[in-house]
Amino acid sequence: MTYKNLDQSTAFAAVSALAPADIRTTLDPERFASCSIPAGGGLTYSYAAMPVVKSHIDALQSLSDDQEVIAKYTALLSGEIMNTGEKRLVLHHLLRGRVPGASETVMADGEEKGAFYAAELEKTRAFAAQVRDGRITGSTGKTFRTVVQIGIGGSDLGPRALYLALKDWALGEGIQRLEARFISNVDPDDAADVLDGLDMERTLFILVSKSGTTQETLTNRDLVIQAMHKKKITGLNPAKHMVAVTSKTSPLATSKNVLASFFFDDYIGGRYSSSSAVGGVVLSLAFGHETFARFLEGAHQADAKALEKDVTKNAALLDALIGVYLRNVLNCPVTAVLPYSQALSRFPAHLQQLDMESNGKSVNRDGVPVSYKTGPVVFGEPGTNGQHSFYQLLHQGTDIIPLQFIGFSRSQAGQDIVTDGSTSQQKLNANLSAQIVAFARGKDDGNPNKRFAGGRWSSLLHGERLTPESLGALLAHYENKVMFQGFLWNINSFDQEGVQLGKVLAGKVLAGSQGDPVLAACAKMLS
Amino acid sequence: MTYKNLDQSTAFAAVSALAPADIRTTLDPERFASCSIPAGGGLTYSYAAMPVVKSHIDALQSLSDDQEVIAKYTALLSGEIMNTGEKRLVLHHLLRGRVPGASETVMADGEEKGAFYAAELEKTRAFAAQVRDGRITGSTGKTFRTVVQIGIGGSDLGPRALYLALKDWALGEGIQRLEARFISNVDPDDAADVLDGLDMERTLFILVSKSGTTQETLTNRDLVIQAMHKKKITGLNPAKHMVAVTSKTSPLATSKNVLASFFFDDYIGGRYSSSSAVGGVVLSLAFGHETFARFLEGAHQADAKALEKDVTKNAALLDALIGVYLRNVLNCPVTAVLPYSQALSRFPAHLQQLDMESNGKSVNRDGVPVSYKTGPVVFGEPGTNGQHSFYQLLHQGTDIIPLQFIGFSRSQAGQDIVTDGSTSQQKLNANLSAQIVAFARGKDDGNPNKRFAGGRWSSLLHGERLTPESLGALLAHYENKVMFQGFLWNINSFDQEGVQLGKVLAGKVLAGSQGDPVLAACAKMLS
Repeated sequence: MTYKNLDQSTAFAAVSALAPADIRTTLDPERFASCSIPAGGGLTYSYAAMPVVKSHIDALQSLSDDQEVIAKYTALLSGEIMNTGEKRLVLHHLLRGRVPGASETVMADGEEKGAFYAAELEKTRAFAAQVRDGRITGSTGKTFRTVVQIGIGGSDLGPRALYLALKDWALGEGIQRLEARFISNVDPDDAADVLDGLDMERTLFILVSKSGTTQETLTNRDLVIQAMHKKKITGLNPAKHMVAVTSKTSPLATSKNVLASFFFDDYIGGRYSSSSAVGGVVLSLAFGHETFARFLEGAHQADAKALEKDVTKNAALLDALIGVYLRNVLNCPVTAVLPYSQALSRFPAHLQQLDMESNGKSVNRDGVPVSYKTGPVVFGEPGTNGQHSFYQLLHQGTDIIPLQFIGFSRSQAGQDIVTDGSTSQQKLNANLSAQIVAFARGKDDGNPNKRFAGGRWSSLLHGERLTPESLGALLAHYENKVMFQGFLWNINSFDQEGVQLGKVLAGKVLAGSQGDPVLAACAKMLS
Repeated sequence: MTYKNLDQSTAFAAVSALAPADIRTTLDPERFASCSIPAGGGLTYSYAAMPVVKSHIDALQSLSDDQEVIAKYTALLSGEIMNTGEKRLVLHHLLRGRVPGASETVMADGEEKGAFYAAELEKTRAFAAQVRDGRITGSTGKTFRTVVQIGIGGSDLGPRALYLALKDWALGEGIQRLEARFISNVDPDDAADVLDGLDMERTLFILVSKSGTTQETLTNRDLVIQAMHKKKITGLNPAKHMVAVTSKTSPLATSKNVLASFFFDDYIGGRYSSSSAVGGVVLSLAFGHETFARFLEGAHQADAKALEKDVTKNAALLDALIGVYLRNVLNCPVTAVLPYSQALSRFPAHLQQLDMESNGKSVNRDGVPVSYKTGPVVFGEPGTNGQHSFYQLLHQGTDIIPLQFIGFSRSQAGQDIVTDGSTSQQKLNANLSAQIVAFARGKDDGNPNKRFAGGRWSSLLHGERLTPESLGALLAHYENKVMFQGFLWNINSFDQEGVQLGKVLAGKVLAGSQGDPVLAACAKMLS
């Protein structure tokens, strides 16, 4: 197995030579059938409206083979050190189960990691069951009704997006739900807003920090404890209302001020941690462990499908390859994620972290600067909302923004109404298919203001309904896409050194900015 | 007054010839004082960390003069038809008061528009007061506790962002608050989620649609009425729980199924409508009319300051000019908005619509294609959250993304705690100033993974505290910036023809996609 930069691959030179297919003419009914790949969890990936035909697919297959991406994926699954900068294994797939073809055992820190993750999952299951059936209560004897996750970055965005994604599904299924809320920002108004009106006796806080030292999270914990004391409720004991999700070696791991601790480790990056206790504790408490287990199963299905070498049968891989073609050949610096599902309202924010933090790099896995573009900017909002907002620029702006649509045949809650001969869900999906076609084909018009150039590319991930399984597959699809792109670019998608300098300088400001007049002058504006 | 394309301006040729200043060396303590402009409502705009020095400012001043942007602003204020495509006046400033130098009267549709808007504002005030003090109750005699706005696009994003922006301020001030919620998406799960657990007897719905025909909004109204009937509460009458915000000529205006109607008109674009009854009714109900009046006053201050011809004294204008320099000379296709204030969590989503829908255009105001780039992609999330997410790419990615920071000295709710020698608010602002300096200066390091190139440009809008006044000024600052950029690009920032094609095709899908096999095949995937 060799690691080489994208521009050292002769297969990439062949990809670079290909002009985009003109989807205004190539998009025919047959393509919707032939350009579809099962992605796990009941999801299907469609690239019908992407500017690629057989010549592109063949060249992308050669690129995939030349960069040995499947071999690298298998190495990662088997416990090779793929986070080269931090010299760490990358094991988030193992949280979902063992992918066939990978090692049966992955040893690190003197333990078999598959067994370790399975044991923590079992702890989560048992704890959630006891809270949900009232065996574990708050310090004043009342059952818990609300859980509040305190965490930031990967300890917030993924779990929050997943919770929101399953809320209406639980409503539709009649699953008893504990309300979940989230405190992330060090801005004290974040905690003030979440805590306002909260019944502290019935609230369980989940403190999430791998290192156990995250400034925002510890500060918010202290704000919460202060707020509990201010209530002056007899018998209310904060330690009985708090659990920790952390690493075994963190200061939190042995804290006496928590009811229970759940562990993950250095091989689970923050943005990849939703499948660990970081997402598992809050989701199992909110919806029951069975729901979380189904989510993991959907993700595992996507992981297994990602092993396929034939790019026309591997949704995450082809999505990654087309993304590289868009970024490095067609020079698109931005991509939009547009879920036609209100439940996915915060999923683009999770993807923003996943993609931009993983692949927003300028050096390769060995620390040598690369001479090509890496990760794009990712943004998005749910449709149809976005249609009434920024779609104007997507249709008629001066840049082409490749689009990633997500859609489902059925709603989650199933509370619908027929107006003007169609249900809301039918209207939603009519808009989604209309947009795909409108972006692709455009439309001429005598009035230049009403002219649409078309040729605006999109993909679609679709399924029957947003369930725990399809949500798991959706999450894993993007994780694997991002991983494959990292392999293609020959970068390390698993560290985040770019966030360190700000932390260091913030500490300097808090210490008075001595010896740094620029920092002092900047801080003075906000004092 | 002449209208000409950006590339027909000789002043722009001079701007184009200027290389960016190297902020790694130009950023000195003195710049933080000298590069500051009052922006109204107590806000200050700082461009210290932007790549512009005196030569740039002089060239941008010439460009502003050459494109006659202040004269165009004054013409707009005075009622000239500035929305050329739709042949409409553009009057959102008038909602906030008369800007000195503009006409004393603006006549349209046989009425004086200033008086019309003032009268609607007074209606809003009187209605909100009666709801808040219990003179107007629900149909079963109970006082209203919750208001739910049903609207999409400009009827949703702006009002929602503003409500969230003032929630913690009201908490800090001890202002009695009616809870506000929002239903926007035609996805039936959006309404299902908002309606779940709602006390219908105490809920007032605000139906917002200028045309009175918006599909999403009417469908959601019907879903709400269906949900009310399903409650089978004796005496519960949906018509007594609903008000309309619409135009006088819309079908909703004369509906007997609403308690009251509040009007705005065709001269208030959706994305500019937060200062009208679209934002006024919900904000006055939630926080009292006095709060909304203070918001309008802050916006009016910003509008007045935007009249200044000297670009070093006009924050919105200089922000616009620097933006054009970044977009058309330094070729930046994206810009990030990063508020260090959790209260502004949805403000970037509002700006996304405001900017991308206004300036995402490829033809000039006369319908002739332009040969230069117009509006950029706008995205953002609050800090410090973003630091733990996509900042990696901003620091070390292969593209430079210009940054727009927003920050305040004090928190809103005032519920803070000292840990490790500083308050949360101090930590928040230490991070903000640290980021500005880190992005600007970068840092060398022996480890290439820890190397920061620096030279990443940012601006800062800052104030003492996020209050109704500063929020109004913040909103108006960006509205005016977008307007000025439209003048510079010679485009019409006030229409949105790019959203029409999708609507037409969605109707076709709902009618069976006859005669369009591509549309039919696309729709079939989601059936």
